[in-house]
Amino acid sequence: MNDKVVCFGELMMRLSTSNFQKIQQSQSFAVNYGGAEANVAVSLAQFGENVAFATRLPQNELGDTAIMQLKSNNVDTSFITRGGKRLGMYLLEVGTMHRGTKVIYDRDDSGFATLAPGMINWKEVFKNATWFHWSGISPAVSEASAEVTLEAVKAAKEAGVMVSCDLNYRGKLWKYGKTPIDVMPQLMEYTDMVLGGKSDAALMLGVKFQEGDSFDSAPKRIKEQYPHLKLVATSLRESFSASHNRLTGVLFNGENEYRSVAFDMPNMVDRVGGGDAFMAGLIYGFLNFDLDYQQTIEFAAAASCIKHTIPGDANLSSVEEVKSIMTGADAGLVAR
Amino acid sequence: MNDKVVCFGELMMRLSTSNFQKIQQSQSFAVNYGGAEANVAVSLAQFGENVAFATRLPQNELGDTAIMQLKSNNVDTSFITRGGKRLGMYLLEVGTMHRGTKVIYDRDDSGFATLAPGMINWKEVFKNATWFHWSGISPAVSEASAEVTLEAVKAAKEAGVMVSCDLNYRGKLWKYGKTPIDVMPQLMEYTDMVLGGKSDAALMLGVKFQEGDSFDSAPKRIKEQYPHLKLVATSLRESFSASHNRLTGVLFNGENEYRSVAFDMPNMVDRVGGGDAFMAGLIYGFLNFDLDYQQTIEFAAAASCIKHTIPGDANLSSVEEVKSIMTGADAGLVAR
Amino acid sequence: MNDKVVCFGELMMRLSTSNFQKIQQSQSFAVNYGGAEANVAVSLAQFGENVAFATRLPQNELGDTAIMQLKSNNVDTSFITRGGKRLGMYLLEVGTMHRGTKVIYDRDDSGFATLAPGMINWKEVFKNATWFHWSGISPAVSEASAEVTLEAVKAAKEAGVMVSCDLNYRGKLWKYGKTPIDVMPQLMEYTDMVLGGKSDAALMLGVKFQEGDSFDSAPKRIKEQYPHLKLVATSLRESFSASHNRLTGVLFNGENEYRSVAFDMPNMVDRVGGGDAFMAGLIYGFLNFDLDYQQTIEFAAAASCIKHTIPGDANLSSVEEVKSIMTGADAGLVAR
Amino acid sequence: MNDKVVCFGELMMRLSTSNFQKIQQSQSFAVNYGGAEANVAVSLAQFGENVAFATRLPQNELGDTAIMQLKSNNVDTSFITRGGKRLGMYLLEVGTMHRGTKVIYDRDDSGFATLAPGMINWKEVFKNATWFHWSGISPAVSEASAEVTLEAVKAAKEAGVMVSCDLNYRGKLWKYGKTPIDVMPQLMEYTDMVLGGKSDAALMLGVKFQEGDSFDSAPKRIKEQYPHLKLVATSLRESFSASHNRLTGVLFNGENEYRSVAFDMPNMVDRVGGGDAFMAGLIYGFLNFDLDYQQTIEFAAAASCIKHTIPGDANLSSVEEVKSIMTGADAGLVAR
Amino acid sequence: MNDKVVCFGELMMRLSTSNFQKIQQSQSFAVNYGGAEANVAVSLAQFGENVAFATRLPQNELGDTAIMQLKSNNVDTSFITRGGKRLGMYLLEVGTMHRGTKVIYDRDDSGFATLAPGMINWKEVFKNATWFHWSGISPAVSEASAEVTLEAVKAAKEAGVMVSCDLNYRGKLWKYGKTPIDVMPQLMEYTDMVLGGKSDAALMLGVKFQEGDSFDSAPKRIKEQYPHLKLVATSLRESFSASHNRLTGVLFNGENEYRSVAFDMPNMVDRVGGGDAFMAGLIYGFLNFDLDYQQTIEFAAAASCIKHTIPGDANLSSVEEVKSIMTGADAGLVAR
Amino acid sequence: MNDKVVCFGELMMRLSTSNFQKIQQSQSFAVNYGGAEANVAVSLAQFGENVAFATRLPQNELGDTAIMQLKSNNVDTSFITRGGKRLGMYLLEVGTMHRGTKVIYDRDDSGFATLAPGMINWKEVFKNATWFHWSGISPAVSEASAEVTLEAVKAAKEAGVMVSCDLNYRGKLWKYGKTPIDVMPQLMEYTDMVLGGKSDAALMLGVKFQEGDSFDSAPKRIKEQYPHLKLVATSLRESFSASHNRLTGVLFNGENEYRSVAFDMPNMVDRVGGGDAFMAGLIYGFLNFDLDYQQTIEFAAAASCIKHTIPGDANLSSVEEVKSIMTGADAGLVAR
Ligand SMILES: [Ca+2]
Ligand SMILES: [Ca+2]
Ligand SMILES: [Ca+2]
Ligand SMILES: [Ca+2]
Ligand SMILES: [Ca+2]
Ligand SMILES: [Ca+2]
Ligand SMILES: [Ca+2]
Ligand SMILES: [Ca+2]
Ligand SMILES: [Ca+2]
Ligand SMILES: [Ca+2]
Ligand SMILES: [Ca+2]
Ligand SMILES: [Ca+2]
Ligand code: NI
Ligand code: NI
Ligand code: NI
Ligand code: NI
Ligand code: NI
Ligand code: NI
Ligand code: NI
Ligand code: NI
Ligand code: NI
Ligand code: NI
Ligand code: NI
Ligand code: NI
Ligand code: NI
Ligand code: NI
Ligand code: NI
Ligand code: NI
Ligand code: NI
Ligand code: NI
Repeated sequence: MNDKVVCFGELMMRLSTSNFQKIQQSQSFAVNYGGAEANVAVSLAQFGENVAFATRLPQNELGDTAIMQLKSNNVDTSFITRGGKRLGMYLLEVGTMHRGTKVIYDRDDSGFATLAPGMINWKEVFKNATWFHWSGISPAVSEASAEVTLEAVKAAKEAGVMVSCDLNYRGKLWKYGKTPIDVMPQLMEYTDMVLGGKSDAALMLGVKFQEGDSFDSAPKRIKEQYPHLKLVATSLRESFSASHNRLTGVLFNGENEYRSVAFDMPNMVDRVGGGDAFMAGLIYGFLNFDLDYQQTIEFAAAASCIKHTIPGDANLSSVEEVKSIMTGADAGLVAR
Repeated sequence: MNDKVVCFGELMMRLSTSNFQKIQQSQSFAVNYGGAEANVAVSLAQFGENVAFATRLPQNELGDTAIMQLKSNNVDTSFITRGGKRLGMYLLEVGTMHRGTKVIYDRDDSGFATLAPGMINWKEVFKNATWFHWSGISPAVSEASAEVTLEAVKAAKEAGVMVSCDLNYRGKLWKYGKTPIDVMPQLMEYTDMVLGGKSDAALMLGVKFQEGDSFDSAPKRIKEQYPHLKLVATSLRESFSASHNRLTGVLFNGENEYRSVAFDMPNMVDRVGGGDAFMAGLIYGFLNFDLDYQQTIEFAAAASCIKHTIPGDANLSSVEEVKSIMTGADAGLVAR
Repeated sequence: MNDKVVCFGELMMRLSTSNFQKIQQSQSFAVNYGGAEANVAVSLAQFGENVAFATRLPQNELGDTAIMQLKSNNVDTSFITRGGKRLGMYLLEVGTMHRGTKVIYDRDDSGFATLAPGMINWKEVFKNATWFHWSGISPAVSEASAEVTLEAVKAAKEAGVMVSCDLNYRGKLWKYGKTPIDVMPQLMEYTDMVLGGKSDAALMLGVKFQEGDSFDSAPKRIKEQYPHLKLVATSLRESFSASHNRLTGVLFNGENEYRSVAFDMPNMVDRVGGGDAFMAGLIYGFLNFDLDYQQTIEFAAAASCIKHTIPGDANLSSVEEVKSIMTGADAGLVAR
Repeated sequence: MNDKVVCFGELMMRLSTSNFQKIQQSQSFAVNYGGAEANVAVSLAQFGENVAFATRLPQNELGDTAIMQLKSNNVDTSFITRGGKRLGMYLLEVGTMHRGTKVIYDRDDSGFATLAPGMINWKEVFKNATWFHWSGISPAVSEASAEVTLEAVKAAKEAGVMVSCDLNYRGKLWKYGKTPIDVMPQLMEYTDMVLGGKSDAALMLGVKFQEGDSFDSAPKRIKEQYPHLKLVATSLRESFSASHNRLTGVLFNGENEYRSVAFDMPNMVDRVGGGDAFMAGLIYGFLNFDLDYQQTIEFAAAASCIKHTIPGDANLSSVEEVKSIMTGADAGLVAR
Repeated sequence: MNDKVVCFGELMMRLSTSNFQKIQQSQSFAVNYGGAEANVAVSLAQFGENVAFATRLPQNELGDTAIMQLKSNNVDTSFITRGGKRLGMYLLEVGTMHRGTKVIYDRDDSGFATLAPGMINWKEVFKNATWFHWSGISPAVSEASAEVTLEAVKAAKEAGVMVSCDLNYRGKLWKYGKTPIDVMPQLMEYTDMVLGGKSDAALMLGVKFQEGDSFDSAPKRIKEQYPHLKLVATSLRESFSASHNRLTGVLFNGENEYRSVAFDMPNMVDRVGGGDAFMAGLIYGFLNFDLDYQQTIEFAAAASCIKHTIPGDANLSSVEEVKSIMTGADAGLVAR
Repeated sequence: MNDKVVCFGELMMRLSTSNFQKIQQSQSFAVNYGGAEANVAVSLAQFGENVAFATRLPQNELGDTAIMQLKSNNVDTSFITRGGKRLGMYLLEVGTMHRGTKVIYDRDDSGFATLAPGMINWKEVFKNATWFHWSGISPAVSEASAEVTLEAVKAAKEAGVMVSCDLNYRGKLWKYGKTPIDVMPQLMEYTDMVLGGKSDAALMLGVKFQEGDSFDSAPKRIKEQYPHLKLVATSLRESFSASHNRLTGVLFNGENEYRSVAFDMPNMVDRVGGGDAFMAGLIYGFLNFDLDYQQTIEFAAAASCIKHTIPGDANLSSVEEVKSIMTGADAGLVAR
C-alpha cells in the first residue's frame, strides 16, 4: 500500500432534496461535496491507499469545506490550487420507483472550469506516483479544462505512471464548441485502462458496435478499436426503477473476460457515485490483487453495490466491508 | 388548454407520523392540506389546466394556509367561501409492509360540513366552465353538504358542463342518517362520468354484481345499471402490502374496454391521493387527447403511479413527467 | 388477563444512526431504551398483560428515563433496583440491502453487570406471578449477573411459576471466563420453555445436530436433549439482505410441530427486537389461547412481523393489530 | 410524601410551530399533550408526590397517547374515563420579541366537554386523598363540564379534602350561555385556596378593585370578598415581550403577604404552563414546608421560572432542581 | 385597496445555515426564495394590496418554485418573463452575538443579470398601476439590468405612476465597470420617494454630509440635494450585535421630520428583509393613511420590527398584526 | 507559522440534548467529538498553526470518527495511538436562563484512561516542536494517565519545548486515590505557562488566597507561589445565567497585568470549550504577537467570545474572524 494514486477532476457542491420531496416542496437541501474523480479518491483513501486529489477550488468557505471533507477522508489535498469565482454546484431532485432523479446543473464558471495550463505543477504532483485517474467529465467542462487534462495525462505518461479513465459521458456538458470525438481519442493515447459502457464508448470514443452487440460488448469493442489499452471494464447496470437496479462488473484484458456476480439492489439509498465506487474498486484490485482479475472485478462490483447503501457521493466502506460482501459472507445480519 | 375545470369538496388538514413511528412515539406530525377533490384540482393545475376549487373554509390561519397552498399550485381560489368554526382534520399513522396505515378522522363541524345551499353562487362558478368534478365524499359528510352537492350538479348541468364523480366510498362517514343509496342515485342523474371500483359501485350506487365478476367488472356493471353514463373507469389496485401495490387503469365507454399496463409500485412513498391523481389524469385525457381512450387510461394510470412517489396528497408532476412514464421511456435513470 | 408476568434482564441505551448514514457521517444519534427482556415486557404490556420488569439501573437521568419509558408502556417498574455507575449502551450503524447493521457494544460495568445476589428480593417479585421470562444474555454479561440469573430461576421454580428462556447467543459477550456450556445447562433445569435456533442450541446448550438437520430441526433436537422442557420454539429467519428477511415460526411440544405461514418482509424498518416480539407473542399465546398451539405460533410470528415495521426495540402493537395480520385480513389497506 | 393529590380538568393535544415559523410556513407541528390541571399533576409527580388525574379521554390512539404521557411522568391514570368523540386540540403559532404567540383553539365536542355527572366515581377518586386541584377552565368548557366540576368540589369537601383553584380566565371559552359570574362563586364555596391575578379576579369572581390597586392587590381583594378562602396567591408576570418576562410570586394568608424574589426571564423557551408550574409549586409547598409561607412562595416562583426553560407544557424538574434556583445557588454553571 | 403596486428586481435562492452552524459544519441548508423588491411585493400582498412582481427567472424547477412562492403569497406573477441560464443564489452563514452573518454571493449570469431592454413589456405592466418600486440593487447587478431599470422608471413616469426606490448599496456588486454615481442620479430623476441611510446616500447618490451630521440626517440631506423628491425616509438601525438591534423610522417630507418609537430587538430571528419590510410599510402607509406621515412612519417601523421575528426574507404579517405592535397594544401576550 | 504545537489529552464523544429538551424528552442526541486539549488543537489549526494531537483512542468506528474530525480541521493525528476498549463519553442536558447545563460523565476505562507509559513515543512527538499544551484533566482521569502526563512534560522539557497548562479542575474526576495536590505541583515544575481561576488555583495547586482577593487575583497569587512560571492567565467569567455570561481575559507576566475588554454574551449558543478557545488564543498570541501581551490577551478573550456563538466544542474561527471582534470592528453587521 505504498503506491501513490493521483485523481484529477472537478469537485462540486451537491444539494439534494430529502424524503422524496419535489424541489417545489423543499424547505431545505442536504449538502454534500463530491465529483466523479474526488469520489474515486475518497474511496481509495478509505481502502488505505495513499491518494492525492488535484483540482482548483475557489478561495471561499465552500472551497474550504470541500477541502475539509477530503482531509477528513484522508485524501492529500496539497495539490489543490485555489482560485476562480465560484464552486460548481448541482441540485438533485431525488426520485424513486418510476420517478427518475432529476439533475439541475449550475457549474459554469467554476474554479475548475476556469483552470489554465500551468496552474497545476504536474511534475510535482506525479513525483513518486503510481497511478493517475481522470474522467471524461474534465474535458467536457470547458476548453480550458480539456487542455489541462491533456497536460495532465502527458505529464503522467512522462512520469511513467499508469493512467485510468472513466469515460463518464455527460450529455448536458460539452457545450464549448468541441465534441467528445474531437478531444477524447488524443487523451486515450496516454491512457492505459478505461471504464465505460456501450453508449459512453460510442459517444466518447467513436467506437462502432454491430447489430446484436449486447451491453457487455463494450470492453471488447473498445479494446479492438483502441488496442493499446491494457484493460477495459464496464459496469452493467440494469435499471428496473429509480430505486431498484442490478449491477454486474465485466473486465476484459485482451484475452479473457472476467465477470462478477450480479448484485440486486432493490432499495438503493443513493445511486450517485455508484460508478465511481466501481472505478475505485478496480484500481484497488489492480494495485493489490496481483493481477487476479477475477478477484478484481468482484471487488469492484461489490464496492459499487455497497456504495448504493450509503448517502452522499462516496463509498465510505473499508476493504474488509467490501470483501464481506464480495465473498457472499454477509447477508445483512446484525453481528452482536 | 382554455377549458375551465371546477372541483368541489372538502379540504382538510392532514397530520401524519414520520419515519413509520406509531402515534404514541411521535413528537411531531407532518402537516399537509388536501382532500380528494382539491387533489384533483391541484394535479390538473400542474398539468396546465385552468382550474377553480370551490369549498368553504374557516376564517382562521389554517383556512388561510389551505388557500395559500392551492394558490401556489395555480388553482383559482376565488370561489372559496369562508366560514364555519374549524378546518376538518385527519391523522395518519403511516404503516408499511404488513402494517396498514391508520386514519383517525376529526372532521365533524368543519366549515364544509356546515355549508348551506345558497352559500356558493354556482351560476358564477360555472360561467365559462367546461368540466365539473365532485366525489362521493361530499354527500357523505353531512346532510347540508349533500344538499349543496345536489345544488352544484344541477347548476352544472344547467350550465352545460360535463360532470365527473369519483365514488370514493368512506365507511367512516355517512353518519347523519342517510345511506349512500338514499342519496347517490339522484346525484348520478346529473353526472356523465364515474370512477369507482366494485365495492364503491355496490355500496354507493347499489350496483349488483354476479358471482364470478372480477374486480375489473365494475365499469361494465355500472354502465349497465346507469346507462346514461358516458364513461366509467376503475383503477385496479392490487395491495400486496402497505408499501407495495400494483395499479392498472380500466376505462369503459359503453363499447370498448381500454386498459393500461400494470404499474408495480414496491416502495410507495405516499399512497394518499393515488386515486385522485388517477382521476385528474382521466379528466386531462378527456380534455386533451381527442377521445383517444387508450392514451387517456394510460395517462391516468401513469399519473397515479408517479403520485405514489411524492409525499403529500397531490400529484405535483407535469404532463411531460407523466408522459415519460406512460411511454415507458423513463426507467428511473439519472439524466445528466 | 390476570396473570402476572415477570421479565428480568439488562436494559440499555441504544444509539442509532439515521437515514443509513455511516457513524462517521452522523451529527446525531437516535436514542431508544431497551433490551431483549424489557422488549418482551413492553410487548406483553401492550397486549394488556400485567407485567413487571426486574433489573438494576444507575441512579442518574438515563436510568430515570429508562424507567419512564417502561412506565409509559404500562410495565410495572417497582422491582427495579437502582445502583451501579452507568447504563450500558450500544451503537447501531444501521445498514440496508447488502450492508449489514453494525453493533458497537459499550456495556461493561453497567448497573446490571454489577448486580449481586440478594439485591433483588425475588420472593417479593414472584408473589402472585404466573410466568417468568429471562434470556441467555443475562448470564453472558458477567459472573455476577449469571449468579443472579440462577438465583432468579430457582426462586421462580420455588414459587411455582412457569419459566421461559430465549437463548439469544451473543458472541461479543461471555468474556468473563466461562462459556455458555458452563452455565446454561444448569439454568435450563429451572426452565420450561425455550426459544432458539440451531446455532443458539449448539453454542448455548451443547445440542448436537446431525448432518442434514435443517434450520427448523432446533426445537426437536433441543427437546430430545433437554427432555424436561415442555415447549421449544424457533423463529426461522431467512436473511436475504439487511432490509429483506422472511420469517416463519415453529413450535414443538414433544408431540407435534406447529408452523406459521412465512411472512415476507422486504422493507424492514427496524429489525432489532424482532425475536423479542416473537417471544412475547408466544407467551401471550400460552396465557390466552387455551393450548391452541397453532394459533399461538401464528400469533407469535405475526407479532414478530409487525415489529419489523416499527422503529425502536419494542413491539408497540395491540393484540388486535397483531391478529389483523395473523388472519390475513390486513393487506396494508388504508381504513377510512 | 404520602399525600394523595387529585387534579381534574381537560387534557388536550397541543400542536406548535417550530423555529418561530408562521403557521403558513410550517411543514410540521410539534406535538405535546397537556392542560392546565394535567400540568399541575405532572409537576407534582416529578416532585415525588402521589398524584392522580381525573378526566375523560376519547377511545382512540390520541387518548391512549395522552395517558402514556401521564404514566411516564408517574401520574396515576386509573380514574380517567374513556369516551367522547375527539381529543380537544389547540395550535400555537409561537412568537418572540414583539410578536405575541397566537392560539387557535379547536376543543369543542371533546370527551371532556361532553362529560356528564355520574361518569366519574368521585367517592372512589377521593378515597385517601389530601388535596384536590381544579381550575376555572373546566366550568368554562361546557355546561356539562361545569356541572361535573361542581359535583367534584362537593365530593371533595365531603371527603374532607383541601381544594385549590387556579382561576385561569379564558376569554375564548365561556360560550355555552353562562358567564363566569353565574358559575364560579358557587364553586368557590367548596374551595380553600385560590390562584389568580387582577383580571381573573374581576372577571371570574366579580371582585371589585379600587382605583390605584396595583397588580399585586389581587390576593388581598379576593380574600376580602371571599373571606372563607384560606390562602390566595398570584404570580405577577411583567411581560416585556413574547420572549422576555419577569415573574414574582405573592401569597396572602389573611394576615401577611409573602413575596418571592423577581425572576427575570429574558430568553423564555416555552411559556405555556408557567402558571401551572407555579400552582404545583404552591401545592408542594403547602404539603411539605410546614406552613412556611415564605419558602412556599419562593419555591412556587422558582418552579415557574424553571418551567420557562423547558419545552412542552409541564415542569419536568425535580424538587432539588427547583431548590437550586430558589436559593440562588444555581447561576447556570456547568457542573463537571 | 384598489391600487396596483408593481415591484421589479432580482429574486434569488437563499441558502442558510441552521442552528448557528458554520458552513463547514452544515449537512443541510435551509432554502428560501427572495430579494429586496420581491420581499416588498410579498409584504404588500399580505397587507391586502394588489401587487405584481416583474423579473426574469430561468426556465427550470428553481424558477418554477420561486414563482410558486410568490403566488402562494398572492403576488401577481403574470409579468415575470422566463429565461437565462440560472437562478442567482447566495449563502448565509448565520451569526449571533458578536459574530456577524456572512454572505457568499453567487449571482452572476442569472436570468435577471442577463435581462435586456424590450424583454419586459412595461406598457402592459403599468396599465392601471399606481405605484412602482425598485431598488439600487437592480442597476448594480449588470449593465443590462441597469438599462432595464432605466427603461422601467421612464415607463413608470410616462404612465403617471408614483415611483419609490430603496437605495440598498451593495458593496459586493457594481462590478461591471460603472459606479453608482454614474448611474443612480439619472434614475433618481424618475423617482419620487427614496429610502436610504447616510452611507447609501453618500455612495449611491453622491450626497455630501457635513461634520457632525448624525445618522438621521440622511433624509434631509438627500432632499436638499435631490429637491424633486417628495419623500425621503431612513430606518436607523443601531446594531449592538448580530442578534440585538434597535430600529427607528425617520421620514422627511421637505417640511417636517416624522419619527417612530425605537423598537428594541434583542433576540432577532432573521434580519434579512428588515429594510424591505420597512419599505413595504412606508408604501402601505402612503396608499392608505391619507398623508398621515406620523402613522406611516410608525407603521413602517413596526412592520420592520415584526419582520425580525419571522424566518425567511419576507414579512408575512397582516396589517392588524403590524398595527397591534405599532399601537403598543401587544406586549407578546398569549391570547387565549 | 512554522512552529509545531503539540496538545495531549483525552478526546471524548459528547452527546447533547437539542432545543433545551430534558434528557427524558429526547429522542435523539447531537454528537460531537472533543476534549479540552483537542479543542485547543483544533482552534490553533484553524488559526493556521502546525498542530499535532497525541492521545489514545479505541480501535473502533468511534475512534475512527474522532480522528476524521481532527483531520478535517487540519490537526496532525499521526501520534495518536489506538487501543483500549472504549471511547469516553459524556452527555450534556443543555440548560438556559436559570437552568444550568447538566453533565453526565461516562468516561471510565476509556482508551485514554488505560494509557501506559511507553505507549506514546514522546521523543518522536516533540521532534521540531515549539510548544506543548496539556491540562489538569489528564492527571485527573486515572493513575496511568497521570503517569503518562508526567512522562510527557518531562520529555517536552528535555526537548526544549515551551509548556502550557490549563488547570481545568474537574470535581467529578480525581477518583483513583490521589488528590490534585499530590500530583499537580510536580507537573508544574515542567510547565512554563498556566491558565486558571481562583478555585482552580486553590484546588489544583494549593495556592493560598487572602481575604479580599478578588477573582482576578489568581494570576498574581499563582505566580507568587510558583515563581518559575513565566506567564499566568485567567479568564474571568461572570455567569448571570446559563445563557448569559460576561468574559474578561487577564494575563500576568510577573511584572504587569494585561486585561482585555469585557465581552458581554447574552445569547450563548454553546459554552463548552469557551476556556479552550481562550487557551488557544493565548498560545496563538505568544507565538505570533512578538510579546505584545496586551494584544495577546485581547485576542484570547475575543477568541473565547466568538466560540460561544458556535455549536460544538471547538472554535472554528479564523484569525481574521477573531481579529474583527477584537478590534471592535464587527458589530454583527451583514456584509453584502
Ligand atoms: Ca460513471
Ligand atoms: Ca397570517
Ligand atoms: Ca379514491
Ligand atoms: Ca415541477
Ligand atoms: Ca433473539
Ligand atoms: Ca396503539
Ligand atoms: Ca394560569
Ligand atoms: Ca429529571
Ligand atoms: Ca435595505
Ligand atoms: Ca468505517
Ligand atoms: Ca477550562
Ligand atoms: Ca471558516
Ligand atoms: Ni474562512
Ligand atoms: Ni445479494
Ligand atoms: Ni430485484
Ligand atoms: Ni391572519
Ligand atoms: Ni414499471
Ligand atoms: Ni411487486
Ligand atoms: Ni434528576
Ligand atoms: Ni404477507
Ligand atoms: Ni421477499
Ligand atoms: Ni390502538
Ligand atoms: Ni436570576
Ligand atoms: Ni430582563
Ligand atoms: Ni418541471
Ligand atoms: Ni417594545
Ligand atoms: Ni436591547
Ligand atoms: Ni471500520
Ligand atoms: Ni460587544
Ligand atoms: Ni448582558
